[in-house]
Amino acid sequence: MQERGLLIVFSGPSGVGKGTVRKEIFEGHGHDFDYSVSMTTRPQRPGEVDGVDYFFRTREEFEEMIKNGQMLEYAEYVGNYYGTPLTYVNETLDSGKDVFLEIEVQGALQVKEKVPDGVFIFLTPPDLDELRDRIVGRGTDSIDVIDQRMEKAREEIKLMSEYDYAVVNDEVSKAAERVKKIVEAEHFRVDRVIGKYRAMID
Amino acid sequence: MQERGLLIVFSGPSGVGKGTVRKEIFEGHGHDFDYSVSMTTRPQRPGEVDGVDYFFRTREEFEEMIKNGQMLEYAEYVGNYYGTPLTYVNETLDSGKDVFLEIEVQGALQVKEKVPDGVFIFLTPPDLDELRDRIVGRGTDSIDVIDQRMEKAREEIKLMSEYDYAVVNDEVSKAAERVKKIVEAEHFRVDRVIGKYRAMID
Repeated sequence: MQERGLLIVFSGPSGVGKGTVRKEIFEGHGHDFDYSVSMTTRPQRPGEVDGVDYFFRTREEFEEMIKNGQMLEYAEYVGNYYGTPLTYVNETLDSGKDVFLEIEVQGALQVKEKVPDGVFIFLTPPDLDELRDRIVGRGTDSIDVIDQRMEKAREEIKLMSEYDYAVVNDEVSKAAERVKKIVEAEHFRVDRVIGKYRAMID
Repeated sequence: MQERGLLIVFSGPSGVGKGTVRKEIFEGHGHDFDYSVSMTTRPQRPGEVDGVDYFFRTREEFEEMIKNGQMLEYAEYVGNYYGTPLTYVNETLDSGKDVFLEIEVQGALQVKEKVPDGVFIFLTPPDLDELRDRIVGRGTDSIDVIDQRMEKAREEIKLMSEYDYAVVNDEVSKAAERVKKIVEAEHFRVDRVIGKYRAMID
């Protein structure tokens, strides 16, 4: 029987660098999982590619998918929807491959309700001042949006305790290595692999 | 405040190659934990060094330590005692370092009762035929002892479900890498590290 893949849920406060760490993981070696591209209604930023960074959709299209039960999770965040289309995730897990979701904190908690045996990894900033510097440095947000993001981030960091693992983003390459090790180690958890050893045990 | 180290309990059936994998781990890089040398009453084998492979003690000395509460765990196995002296383990954990125990299955279950937040790793053979080949190949045991060990091993493999992780010993170097990754990943578990993030969270 084909063993089902692991659902890896990678999340953390806005501005912590989830996307950068995720890219580092997928550009490097030593991973064996598929990235589930998220869907969003936020405007495409310079350099972003539809279907690679996100699927960029209108509000109407996104709400239609929610209505049809086609989203594993979604969240509205600073006026835009972000979410994970369900079909790709299920088909990939069924094929035995791990699926990697990089999603917002609200969405991660929805996934946890639906898939409690997923691997929930929280990316955390070294401290709150550094998080603010990063959000400011990105230069895409107004002061008001920055303040909104910081307040939101504080709320989100409080939800760390709902996750399985916390990884600090002090250096992108180190954070990426930590995530890869966590995923590898999770593959050896007894409750995930005991089926393979049944023949020996019985 | 100094964070307490992790207690890593590495176990598995007799003959699976625990000692070989443990030596590979400690000879290589990428680990940062201390090995707790076990105590035994079994005869010293050629090449083994007292205080390195085991502390070799008489039955009387061992029973005196049990009586004085100086053992974290112990087991009697094929006519000999094996166990872990308590003082070294506690002092090392208190200093913030991880401690690595390579012990028998009976002993591991005793440790689990006393230290439930330890990391319990079970080393398993690829299959039972290969385990028998290894026990026979070691050439130190009579046929009767081999049969006893195989029967015991079957019983021990049934206890895999009491552990956190199962690592197959298909190749010593691969098994050692897996164990190191598991230990590294465990350091990122939210319930172990959340104290470090209290300042950000509160």
